[in-house]
Amino acid sequence: MNFEFKRKFKGTISIIGTSKIDSATEKLTIELGRLLAKNHFAISCGGLYGVMEAVCKGAKMEGGFTIGIIPFEDKSKANKYIDVVIPVPFSQARNVIVVLSGDACIAIEGKAGTLSEMCFAWIYGKPIIALTGEINGWSSKMAGTRIDDRRNDTIYGAKTAQEAIEKLNEVFKSNPNITYDMPTEF
Amino acid sequence: MNFEFKRKFKGTISIIGTSKIDSATEKLTIELGRLLAKNHFAISCGGLYGVMEAVCKGAKMEGGFTIGIIPFEDKSKANKYIDVVIPVPFSQARNVIVVLSGDACIAIEGKAGTLSEMCFAWIYGKPIIALTGEINGWSSKMAGTRIDDRRNDTIYGAKTAQEAIEKLNEVFKSNPNITYDMPTEF
Amino acid sequence: MNFEFKRKFKGTISIIGTSKIDSATEKLTIELGRLLAKNHFAISCGGLYGVMEAVCKGAKMEGGFTIGIIPFEDKSKANKYIDVVIPVPFSQARNVIVVLSGDACIAIEGKAGTLSEMCFAWIYGKPIIALTGEINGWSSKMAGTRIDDRRNDTIYGAKTAQEAIEKLNEVFKSNPNITYDMPTEF
Amino acid sequence: MNFEFKRKFKGTISIIGTSKIDSATEKLTIELGRLLAKNHFAISCGGLYGVMEAVCKGAKMEGGFTIGIIPFEDKSKANKYIDVVIPVPFSQARNVIVVLSGDACIAIEGKAGTLSEMCFAWIYGKPIIALTGEINGWSSKMAGTRIDDRRNDTIYGAKTAQEAIEKLNEVFKSNPNITYDMPTEF
Repeated sequence: MNFEFKRKFKGTISIIGTSKIDSATEKLTIELGRLLAKNHFAISCGGLYGVMEAVCKGAKMEGGFTIGIIPFEDKSKANKYIDVVIPVPFSQARNVIVVLSGDACIAIEGKAGTLSEMCFAWIYGKPIIALTGEINGWSSKMAGTRIDDRRNDTIYGAKTAQEAIEKLNEVFKSNPNITYDMPTEF
Repeated sequence: MNFEFKRKFKGTISIIGTSKIDSATEKLTIELGRLLAKNHFAISCGGLYGVMEAVCKGAKMEGGFTIGIIPFEDKSKANKYIDVVIPVPFSQARNVIVVLSGDACIAIEGKAGTLSEMCFAWIYGKPIIALTGEINGWSSKMAGTRIDDRRNDTIYGAKTAQEAIEKLNEVFKSNPNITYDMPTEF
Repeated sequence: MNFEFKRKFKGTISIIGTSKIDSATEKLTIELGRLLAKNHFAISCGGLYGVMEAVCKGAKMEGGFTIGIIPFEDKSKANKYIDVVIPVPFSQARNVIVVLSGDACIAIEGKAGTLSEMCFAWIYGKPIIALTGEINGWSSKMAGTRIDDRRNDTIYGAKTAQEAIEKLNEVFKSNPNITYDMPTEF
Repeated sequence: MNFEFKRKFKGTISIIGTSKIDSATEKLTIELGRLLAKNHFAISCGGLYGVMEAVCKGAKMEGGFTIGIIPFEDKSKANKYIDVVIPVPFSQARNVIVVLSGDACIAIEGKAGTLSEMCFAWIYGKPIIALTGEINGWSSKMAGTRIDDRRNDTIYGAKTAQEAIEKLNEVFKSNPNITYDMPTEF
């Protein structure tokens, strides 16, 4: 038992998106989870189903690490791919914690709850990547835009999981707001 | 001292919008506050400045009633037009309470925080009115749209304060989700 | 319609206590509610039953004003004596808002939830009055004590509703932490 | 990179206590952290100083795992022994999350904030161990007592770190409320 989170992971990525997804989005999201783990990113999410479950399933296939911020008091309600369960039984206010627990954010599809999380990621200065391509929902709609004038960057649109990871690796090399030490080897 | 809130007010309207506004938006928002009070609607808002202060100023000109959900522990930080101050020092999670304290919601301009509040109003089933016309920001952008497919109605766009009030009076006559008794006289 | 909260009320008192009470405690709590209203204090509480309902019932008998911070999303779940309902569907975290919405705090009986509220009132610097006499629970146990060394005062024990009001009137004359203007006439 | 939280840890223990401690309490708390890690318990705490830092320091000496629920938006404000930082910038409401993130709770000294956490652990049905012996504060005062009548057990007083661990191992064998699978080997 000799686990050093900060030496194993470059950072934690908040994954936000729809809780009911079709098989194409599920496949893409599992692929994203695998790539995140392979690239030494931990995952934080809402801990339940759809995008949340698929990304964690992918991550655990590759020995990744997953945090689930669930909206219930009972820890056993998280999906089975969650390592660390954090109950935040605060209705929609849990969305704030999902965003703050990550160093950056990736949106996949998404309805009103996901859009609120993109807003919070924007307000808290987190880099935001939005999946597009065959993807519906708010991630496609918001890609390439600015939510308001407080930031000069835009929400970065990525057509594939691979493109999202490349952007993430670029962001984690350059963004001074990310405070975690980045290990040079693993 | 003989005050019966439920007999005096048809309901409470959450007013959401930008915290820094120009004089045209201020004038419109004060007018909205006056009309809300005259039409027996109480106001809930974030308790600070810009849209929040202007709508409360208007309401108090007409003897209306105002609730300020401020993001600080200290009640004295609310603007001077607030009757009841509720401190919710929970960062952006206060937005959830601003929305839930109202029976319907009116958006005026708005940046990322306001957009998150429109999302919550949508999720919680609150009727939403968005001011348009000369107004910038998310209220104009979202007017006439649905945030996702969980509801069949759209965000109602209103060009003037008067039009917003007319819509509100219509909604409060017909919406079965609004549980407050509506007094027939005042 | 010409209601000025700050001119009518000296301040808002958070009433905390047990949600199931016997008839003796109910009688005492109704009496407290009446005296609070007669002495120009508004009431904030958890908005549900037991102590919360009894104090609001008493206050409304005398035309007082009541705020209910309920732990549900649905405003209609407050007891019928509540004027302003603020939903805070954040599980036990709602206790923080019950305390912060008042300028001082009165505890009546109380189990673990009430004790947590006394802790928060202590931390946030609110004057605390605890009912004793025939009263069981944490209000009697904590009366006359300090929760920790951050404050020099003690939780004030009051044997009757009248004694609690006298203490409250004294506190509101002398406590510099209470920032509301106190009207000299009503 | 092949980390399986549920296979490595029997559960997560919320450690609550004073943020400024003397060297005797620090030594005891570091010892507790070492024993928790050696006995395959992960730690959740408030992520800052005093008891929180000492227990995490001890745990990391033995390769343990630590979660810090900090009251700030900025993840970099956690102490350096925290593996996973969860920002909960919700003032005292963060205490609720500290308690819910664990499967049981150990209190060491403690002022009003710790007492509020013991109340929440009691309400949420978490087993509670309170350190006594040379220890001051609420952990000694509450040991052996029941906070109210909703539970039949008492807060378990432990004079040493070793005794706390023994009780914890006993609890994790017998308590049906702990839902995590307990690995039989590591």
